[in-house]
Amino acid sequence: MNIDKGNLLYRGKAKDVYQTSNPNQVLVKFRDDITAGDGEKKEVMGLKGYYNSIISAKFFQLLEEVGVKTQYIDLPEPGYMLCHKLDMIPLEVITRNLAAGSLLRRFPFQDGQTFHPPIIQMDYKNDEYHDPMLNDDIILALGLATADDLEEIRQITLKINRTLKTFLEDRGLIFPDFKIEYGRDVDGNIVLGDEISPDTCRFWDRETCDVLDKDLFRKGESGVIEAYQKVANIILDDEDKKKWKLDF
Amino acid sequence: MNIDKGNLLYRGKAKDVYQTSNPNQVLVKFRDDITAGDGEKKEVMGLKGYYNSIISAKFFQLLEEVGVKTQYIDLPEPGYMLCHKLDMIPLEVITRNLAAGSLLRRFPFQDGQTFHPPIIQMDYKNDEYHDPMLNDDIILALGLATADDLEEIRQITLKINRTLKTFLEDRGLIFPDFKIEYGRDVDGNIVLGDEISPDTCRFWDRETCDVLDKDLFRKGESGVIEAYQKVANIILDDEDKKKWKLDF
Repeated sequence: MNIDKGNLLYRGKAKDVYQTSNPNQVLVKFRDDITAGDGEKKEVMGLKGYYNSIISAKFFQLLEEVGVKTQYIDLPEPGYMLCHKLDMIPLEVITRNLAAGSLLRRFPFQDGQTFHPPIIQMDYKNDEYHDPMLNDDIILALGLATADDLEEIRQITLKINRTLKTFLEDRGLIFPDFKIEYGRDVDGNIVLGDEISPDTCRFWDRETCDVLDKDLFRKGESGVIEAYQKVANIILDDEDKKKWKLDF
Repeated sequence: MNIDKGNLLYRGKAKDVYQTSNPNQVLVKFRDDITAGDGEKKEVMGLKGYYNSIISAKFFQLLEEVGVKTQYIDLPEPGYMLCHKLDMIPLEVITRNLAAGSLLRRFPFQDGQTFHPPIIQMDYKNDEYHDPMLNDDIILALGLATADDLEEIRQITLKINRTLKTFLEDRGLIFPDFKIEYGRDVDGNIVLGDEISPDTCRFWDRETCDVLDKDLFRKGESGVIEAYQKVANIILDDEDKKKWKLDF
């Protein structure tokens, strides 16, 4: 292990971002902290960072292969991701293929109702205002993005959804919804950042209907880490495990 | 007075809708009930329906003159409006020229910040779900309107805003925001319905900064009806007063 880890630049709810010797790169530490309910429910769950980092790395690589720019450079060891440094856009971009979670509490959809095309929802990443849902006019007025940015973000997001949904369905998983975040790289490109993991997605086993994501933690159920490990096992192939020297 | 008033078709928070002898027309009774805070604050305020009906009639007529289709046919007497029967679209279409009210509680705008272009916000008119804010994808998924409907609603709403804002500014009033509702007439046209009044708009006196709308009631201040009367006096000309036999 030879990790280029400098000063802490940013501490989020579940990840730390460190400087590296390259000014255009950062090292992201995936922590074991798990939170829910606008930060009210908090716990530390051993190996969560480990699994989320490798699951995210796998998804980022998949997306790079279909032409989506991501922050991912390398996983020097599970738990740590070397990334392009991004200036993050404070939007939580949520894509919904199926009605679940907060959508059902807020709007009269049927439980399990599917969406063709998917619903894209953008929330303002702002703890003080409790991440309120936005619309395009409000995003423009707040100066969070331009109309062109929004159109680009929507098109990339739909491509990400198509890619991951197909990949997951081929492996027996239903993909009800997921949350992603974007940033800008040094050249001004809009680049996928943050993570794609059971913390930020819903994954359901098609056969057993088992929930394999943070909803287990939200509902106080057991088997959270086992579910995250299962997702890793389902999506990783032998080559990935060899590459990242994984021992499960 | 000769009012063609049949059975009650619909009772809203502040208006009743009655059948008339013409199946394509309804009679809208503007009641004196005034509510705020998602219906938690309620009162009866004499003459409120009277003023709101004539203010709305004036605005509807102004808008008809610039080519906006409205429900307005006639004001047989203040308090009662004869209207085209509409199949209402359950959207509260809110236009904001200036940051005020709930927008400031929900998002980090500056108090009094102006918007060019205005912000259009669409809330779902649904008591059970407390009128949640929508975005276009959610509106489409709920089947409330089509993408073409939304584009048409936006264009009409911007025209209404331009027309009313200029008219009010010419009379010394600031027009921070307003809420309107649309419906479909028998031919399927999207038509402006509901009301445009101090119950559904903010009006501020440019010179005195006096608030002349329902915010007075929301904040428990006095002079509510006096403010509504003042708005009527400001926007009506002698011809209007003569036409509607008004005695103030």
